[in-house]
Amino acid sequence: MAQNVCVSRLDALRKAMEKNGIDVYMIPTADFHGSEYVADYFKVREYFSGFTGENATLVVTKDEADLWVDGRFFIQAEHELEGSGIIEQRMGEPGVPTLHEFLRKTMRDGETLGFDGRCVNEAQGREIARLLSGKHVKIRSDKDLAEEVWSDRPVLPSHPVFLLDAEKYAGETAASKLSRLRAVMDEKGAKFYVSSKLDEIMWLYNIRGNDVICSPVALSYTFVTPDEAFLFIQDSEVTDELREYAKGIGLVICHYVAFDEFLRTRVVYDGPVLYDPAFTGYQTCRTIREAMTAGGADASLLMIPVNSPVDYMKAVKNETEIRNFKEIYIEDSAAVTKFIYWLKKTVGREKMTEGSAAAHLDGLRAKIKDYVELSFPTISAYGENAAMMHYEPKGEGAEVKPEGMLLVDSGGQYMRGTTDVTRTMALGPVTDDMKKSYTLTAASMLQLMDTKFLAGSSGITLDIMAREPMWREGMDYKCGTGHGIGYLLNVHEGPQSIRYRKRDAADMTAFAPGMVVSDEPGVYKSGKYGIRIETILLCVHERTTEDGEFYGFEPLTYVPFDRDLIDPAYLSGELLALLNAYNAQVLEKIAPFLDGEEKAWLEEQCARI
Amino acid sequence: MAQNVCVSRLDALRKAMEKNGIDVYMIPTADFHGSEYVADYFKVREYFSGFTGENATLVVTKDEADLWVDGRFFIQAEHELEGSGIIEQRMGEPGVPTLHEFLRKTMRDGETLGFDGRCVNEAQGREIARLLSGKHVKIRSDKDLAEEVWSDRPVLPSHPVFLLDAEKYAGETAASKLSRLRAVMDEKGAKFYVSSKLDEIMWLYNIRGNDVICSPVALSYTFVTPDEAFLFIQDSEVTDELREYAKGIGLVICHYVAFDEFLRTRVVYDGPVLYDPAFTGYQTCRTIREAMTAGGADASLLMIPVNSPVDYMKAVKNETEIRNFKEIYIEDSAAVTKFIYWLKKTVGREKMTEGSAAAHLDGLRAKIKDYVELSFPTISAYGENAAMMHYEPKGEGAEVKPEGMLLVDSGGQYMRGTTDVTRTMALGPVTDDMKKSYTLTAASMLQLMDTKFLAGSSGITLDIMAREPMWREGMDYKCGTGHGIGYLLNVHEGPQSIRYRKRDAADMTAFAPGMVVSDEPGVYKSGKYGIRIETILLCVHERTTEDGEFYGFEPLTYVPFDRDLIDPAYLSGELLALLNAYNAQVLEKIAPFLDGEEKAWLEEQCARI
Repeated sequence: MAQNVCVSRLDALRKAMEKNGIDVYMIPTADFHGSEYVADYFKVREYFSGFTGENATLVVTKDEADLWVDGRFFIQAEHELEGSGIIEQRMGEPGVPTLHEFLRKTMRDGETLGFDGRCVNEAQGREIARLLSGKHVKIRSDKDLAEEVWSDRPVLPSHPVFLLDAEKYAGETAASKLSRLRAVMDEKGAKFYVSSKLDEIMWLYNIRGNDVICSPVALSYTFVTPDEAFLFIQDSEVTDELREYAKGIGLVICHYVAFDEFLRTRVVYDGPVLYDPAFTGYQTCRTIREAMTAGGADASLLMIPVNSPVDYMKAVKNETEIRNFKEIYIEDSAAVTKFIYWLKKTVGREKMTEGSAAAHLDGLRAKIKDYVELSFPTISAYGENAAMMHYEPKGEGAEVKPEGMLLVDSGGQYMRGTTDVTRTMALGPVTDDMKKSYTLTAASMLQLMDTKFLAGSSGITLDIMAREPMWREGMDYKCGTGHGIGYLLNVHEGPQSIRYRKRDAADMTAFAPGMVVSDEPGVYKSGKYGIRIETILLCVHERTTEDGEFYGFEPLTYVPFDRDLIDPAYLSGELLALLNAYNAQVLEKIAPFLDGEEKAWLEEQCARI
Repeated sequence: MAQNVCVSRLDALRKAMEKNGIDVYMIPTADFHGSEYVADYFKVREYFSGFTGENATLVVTKDEADLWVDGRFFIQAEHELEGSGIIEQRMGEPGVPTLHEFLRKTMRDGETLGFDGRCVNEAQGREIARLLSGKHVKIRSDKDLAEEVWSDRPVLPSHPVFLLDAEKYAGETAASKLSRLRAVMDEKGAKFYVSSKLDEIMWLYNIRGNDVICSPVALSYTFVTPDEAFLFIQDSEVTDELREYAKGIGLVICHYVAFDEFLRTRVVYDGPVLYDPAFTGYQTCRTIREAMTAGGADASLLMIPVNSPVDYMKAVKNETEIRNFKEIYIEDSAAVTKFIYWLKKTVGREKMTEGSAAAHLDGLRAKIKDYVELSFPTISAYGENAAMMHYEPKGEGAEVKPEGMLLVDSGGQYMRGTTDVTRTMALGPVTDDMKKSYTLTAASMLQLMDTKFLAGSSGITLDIMAREPMWREGMDYKCGTGHGIGYLLNVHEGPQSIRYRKRDAADMTAFAPGMVVSDEPGVYKSGKYGIRIETILLCVHERTTEDGEFYGFEPLTYVPFDRDLIDPAYLSGELLALLNAYNAQVLEKIAPFLDGEEKAWLEEQCARI
């Protein structure tokens, strides 16, 4: 993009700011629903800054524009911002102000901060409002200035929704889910529940859409009362089948664009509203608060913030979902195992790139029954590229040679569930340091998988079981150890996760049997190599004693470790036994999917070390 | 107490409720400062219920009175409530409503709930207000009805305060502490700071008092502005020395009883107030909110809830405090070691009771230089009594015989710091099960002490390192693993703690070098025995690598393990090596305090296993 384009776009934005009495305008990278991937319609920050990376926040003042960029994108932003006059703010670097510090320092008493309050969640918006309250800064959150400036803006994505069969796939009817939600509302003393989060809305009503890439969801909001439930969705997404089905479960279909109006004028707030500040738009909560206050009520008491009960219910998979997950993970693991065989036999014989390797794997996955789409673009990272955790090859990417390692992180969306798996493979000669790092990663993954824990333990309780082998060596990986996984929904879902410190309130969620979580430690050496081993685990009940209920994990993923990368010197006897036991299970479960040479190769791979 | 007394007191209370338009009145067990131990003045719940236990909440309606009692006090409450007509609500038992459920069920639309808003913190009070908001229940929190009914109420405790020398003991001047606090206020965008928490007020101004048993604090509040600091304290506690000192550091001394009036009429809230909802009274926050609202401001934005920055600063001990701690812990450990020697030599030869054993230890401690008082009443629990974690012998308590085990948990307040230590001793024959339990407890204590962890780790991150040996066996102890310890302040202090699940926001506080924490796993078998081993640890910097800062612990306590209770079959080679290394250090550090037979005995105790 020619940089003068951005300069003139920012000029137009500043005119719109002036017209609307806005002194500083903030543009995050987000849709109205806090989705991980956003559609073109929502790429406002990219439109005004020219920066194409996945994450950044632009702040525009009368005479300055600043872009907050995280470590993954420092270099990219430097290139893309050239000539735009926009200042790159490298998050976490010494001397660089945080966005909040910048706003506090820059904004003057009585000025107005503007942002599209639908693209900022309640928790974020309130924090900013609180931060600036001492300066009497006004917040204007009802204006999307892009509407006034971006003339050729893409339209909102819109695709018809489909129903998910309760008996075969979802395992529970929407009516039953609604009744469980209402029981929680009642327990918390609330009358209403509101949510903007797409995957939980899909789960609640057993529907799926196609508005967000790699994630079968439809743009929507919901509002639940003791007797009714309202689904706000674009008219073009509503099928006759949905209309019929909605009637049957007391679900009222409303226009997507009428949500704010509904909250402002149609609800009598004669009871508290339950909401998750991380899953509900700032503007949504503001509208509700204003309607409550207009009605003479104390909004600060009538708004009850919680970790979403729907998100929690969704995370605890039921018997049908678990049965489907177990099936599809075996089939998906078999595809990945075949891919590894192909990779090892082919590398150095035929020309291979990161892109062609990914394409081969994607092809194997597409053949699986029930395949819908990938659950995220396959990460195929060779050599030093793998040190970047979120690497995606541009085009074909680097050439893959018969030396060093290839890291492949991939997954699929199937009617029987969503998969995610990472393995790192030796392609030829590897160094002792690589072997040490791989073996410690395997130790981390296995030690966590083998942990027994008391009911009430969260991922923060458990994380050190994965990191301990690394921390003892003064090593660490700069990301969480694990995330939840949806059922034909987001490949990353909460509320549970495994990390050693809290990022948000949901991280404290206790594990429960039926929860699914990734176990993915790694070693990332910048400029050298990257290793990650990711196995998906199912939380299961272990035993009940007089001291309580104890839980543990069992793997859903069955893809072998790479024995060329194991150095037993770094494994205790217990951990080596765990590794051999895991490989033995891989052989038992995956061999039936293989023939001849493939099968013989797997037998070698899984032989006792 | 004759039960008719309570009946007539409740009658009088109900008349006062009616006069004040209160339908339901709640009486927790608390002073105005959230203190662990409360003075007689604050024993309102005991006055009206006759129940003398340390913890319970009484709720009185027009025609019913209910007392919520935790598991420690079920039996005691049953006896003490007899004839009072008060219903015992056993917390956690199946079918028993929680206090919140009861209030929601019992209170009718538009009724008024009353409680003394100084005895309920903001977090608790707001939760109740929110819970009942759907029923339009009014909260009357400015009335202490005991004032109208309890004619012979004891007076507030009141003792002169004393100053703590900054160079010799505190290690930092109050001026420096205030300036650090103001930097945090500024960073959070706040103009004011308010607190009701006694130990943090004492720490901030380098003063100490004597109003709460075992805890050298004075009843007080504080309010800090960018230029001034206000200390609200009883006139009778203010010495000439304090007056002089206060002038020097810009501290304004105010009447204790004038705090509410000050907040309501003297402060212009032209900036946000920083406060910790767990450390500030509901009534205090309500007064501030009302004053803000009266001034036309949005109180929900001007009130900034945080984990107390003072509590955090207090927890990170400085060099002077650490030097003093190290000294006093050795001297205190020597006293406990001498006690164990005496115990083992004396039991079965002279008559011994739980009480006489405690008295012997208390006497040894009182001889230590700088001794002020005990840091809590010594717990001396023989046999099955030790299964009760908070056991305190009544009078002499049980006879101590030369068989089974004695658990002793004790500590002192000294000018050089506050101590806390637990050891469990074999007094004669013990069972294999006792040895297994003791050895697992030792394994838990040692494994946590030896953990290396990345900066950012909280006690929730670390807890499983202590519990893992027990959880693997299906065992658990029903309490936290560790708590912070004050410097000549509370023996239990935050914000850091070690537990596997979150109790309050402060539990997520990351460990930092200089923090002191207890490491006290245990095994409690109801009706049989109890084991606890408590060693106090200092958090220290271990090493810096390219992956971050790594921390670890070193012990402050040096009291030997009981080798009669160790079964090496339950220890891995690594843990046995840790145990032997710890005992070797005990010998090195404590032997210089012992002579002759004592010393020879310690050498035997600490010999390699």
